[in-house]
Amino acid sequence: MAHQFTVPGRIVTGEGALEASLEVLRSFGTRAFVVCDPLMVSLGNLEVLTGALASVGISCEAFSEITGEPTDEMVARGVERARAWPCDMYIGLGGGSPIDAMKAIACMVALDADIDDQMGAEIACDRPPLVAIPTTAGTGSEVTRFTIISNTRDDVKMLLAGPSVMPDVAIVDPRFTLTAPADVTANAGVDALCHALEAATSRRMQPMSYTFSVSAIRRIFANLPACWRDGANVGAREQMAIAATEAGIAFSNASVTIVHGMSRPIGALFHVPHGLSNAMIVLECLRFVVDGAYPQFAAVARDAGVSRAEDDRAAALELLDALQGLLEELRIPTLREHGIDEAAFRAQIPKMAADAMASGSPSNTIKPLCAADLEAIYDRLISA
Amino acid sequence: MAHQFTVPGRIVTGEGALEASLEVLRSFGTRAFVVCDPLMVSLGNLEVLTGALASVGISCEAFSEITGEPTDEMVARGVERARAWPCDMYIGLGGGSPIDAMKAIACMVALDADIDDQMGAEIACDRPPLVAIPTTAGTGSEVTRFTIISNTRDDVKMLLAGPSVMPDVAIVDPRFTLTAPADVTANAGVDALCHALEAATSRRMQPMSYTFSVSAIRRIFANLPACWRDGANVGAREQMAIAATEAGIAFSNASVTIVHGMSRPIGALFHVPHGLSNAMIVLECLRFVVDGAYPQFAAVARDAGVSRAEDDRAAALELLDALQGLLEELRIPTLREHGIDEAAFRAQIPKMAADAMASGSPSNTIKPLCAADLEAIYDRLISA
Ligand SMILES: [Fe+2]
Ligand SMILES: [Fe+2]
Repeated sequence: MAHQFTVPGRIVTGEGALEASLEVLRSFGTRAFVVCDPLMVSLGNLEVLTGALASVGISCEAFSEITGEPTDEMVARGVERARAWPCDMYIGLGGGSPIDAMKAIACMVALDADIDDQMGAEIACDRPPLVAIPTTAGTGSEVTRFTIISNTRDDVKMLLAGPSVMPDVAIVDPRFTLTAPADVTANAGVDALCHALEAATSRRMQPMSYTFSVSAIRRIFANLPACWRDGANVGAREQMAIAATEAGIAFSNASVTIVHGMSRPIGALFHVPHGLSNAMIVLECLRFVVDGAYPQFAAVARDAGVSRAEDDRAAALELLDALQGLLEELRIPTLREHGIDEAAFRAQIPKMAADAMASGSPSNTIKPLCAADLEAIYDRLISA
Repeated sequence: MAHQFTVPGRIVTGEGALEASLEVLRSFGTRAFVVCDPLMVSLGNLEVLTGALASVGISCEAFSEITGEPTDEMVARGVERARAWPCDMYIGLGGGSPIDAMKAIACMVALDADIDDQMGAEIACDRPPLVAIPTTAGTGSEVTRFTIISNTRDDVKMLLAGPSVMPDVAIVDPRFTLTAPADVTANAGVDALCHALEAATSRRMQPMSYTFSVSAIRRIFANLPACWRDGANVGAREQMAIAATEAGIAFSNASVTIVHGMSRPIGALFHVPHGLSNAMIVLECLRFVVDGAYPQFAAVARDAGVSRAEDDRAAALELLDALQGLLEELRIPTLREHGIDEAAFRAQIPKMAADAMASGSPSNTIKPLCAADLEAIYDRLISA
């Protein structure tokens, strides 16, 4: 069976990655349209970026209005701004949201289209190069062929995918992650771990995505606690930044499964940040599906150096025990500890299970799942 | 420290990879200039390719005159042919030689230059997309930013590098490797293992190149003997094809070290095929340098699942023992067993050591090396 593996052609990692990328950016031209959020402005990261670009003669137009997860309205405003200031490259600076927004803005300008008409479309267009600079080690948006934009008219999250959604250059400089507070670090890091674990145990896993999953899992177990305890640990931050990028490459090419499938409805209905909702449910989800894929979980456990057990079931369970230990160390709360109202949650279980199934992600899980299975897991999660 | 990591944006792997790539190739246009060797014609592989391309309306001009390692003269003939038949994409089909030649032809047409004037230049030009289809699991040329062309005027091997030398699409279909005889399989497989091992223990190693080294090493130890024993084992062939591609990505981003450095002069002076000369010398080379980099060799040994030793020296030596076992299993000969004349070889040792040092590769080795060290290793190799 053949597998498509796609990835940005250039990934620059490590301290000073921004400076090391300037020559390539300059080869794209002299005008950059930068998409970011107000935090990047107040933290001074936008200034660092524009200063570096100015040093090689690249001028910028900054659109810093991405407040929270991107919506069609934010994208429309960005498209308007970008049309008025034709550019040679687009740059997304921030967490997943500004990068996702940057991808959408660039494609909608090129297609001259309304994003609300593009849901489910395979986006292929002729557009200037896309450059992504992640500032949280988590979403992996800098290396994925996806973007998620909320349609505020119909209150749904739209997944847009395609070759034109993939950035051309990812600049993974750990300096930009140093300012992330401990809880953001933990949530983003566990989000990346979910990407890697889900991709490695997905029905759509392929050999090269597996290579990245294993490497990311190894780096995350070894470095996430250190980043969480001491945000100024640059070495650990660099390893986590690379891990998140590797995990992004893994799930961009193998897709996510049950965890992201069940997490998205919680995020949408209870306004829980994406990384945190994954972190609160990942253990329960994987404990439910592990018996359908002991060999696959065992391979991950052994290849990532988590287990030496010969027996598949034993190795697979060791991986989940290691995951449990990591979540406890990072003090990930339960849904109720996070403050979700039990009755309100229970009332939404049928809708969440249906929405999760409809997203398609749960059916990438190797163990066959139905809506009743997801309802049982949601029930267990709110009972904990 | 920042690291540049570059790779083709699309890598299609597995059985049927050619068919799975046709849509993307068609998006490039309707005219393909195909570079291959006479063997690809006689084995019918060229016909398989042109038939598949015709099925989506892509017509071909085939240049099948790459006989052996590519020379400036072959490239010049290819450039002439390609100029007379303007194309929308270039396709290289074969081992490393046709793919290297394809890269050079495409860049020389775009630059309107003579390749003999380009030695050491960083090649950046505007050219049609490059597509590489490897038929031996070895060189990794399908994913490297290098090409090696012999300058017949001055009798030197020219290394050309740069972003334009990197293919845009690699099609890694194990079907094309099924026809490789056992000795070619062994030599190409050990060449790939050298790429992965050298890249992982290079001074220019970077985190993401290491990810690929480890994965390639794991796959090669697990699958090369099976491919060698039974060339029709498609599963093992697929794993080796992916391993060679992963190893190519590793060394394209981290460079090779002592083994390739010392192997090239043997190849040049005694006309030993590239993979075989690596295979005959790799163990002696690495045994010489391992004491300068126990922690690095030990990390590879553990991460690739070859050793569980806590002690770095012990783990590193276990890796070399595993390498020795593999070479013995594949019946790799010594230099003398291969028929190299001892006296003739000894007479060339000073020149080979000097040429190796001049290539720059040995100085990527972590253990500091001088010409006298290389002379001692050459001496030991011809004494065995
Ligand atoms: Fe996620
Ligand atoms: Fe090689």
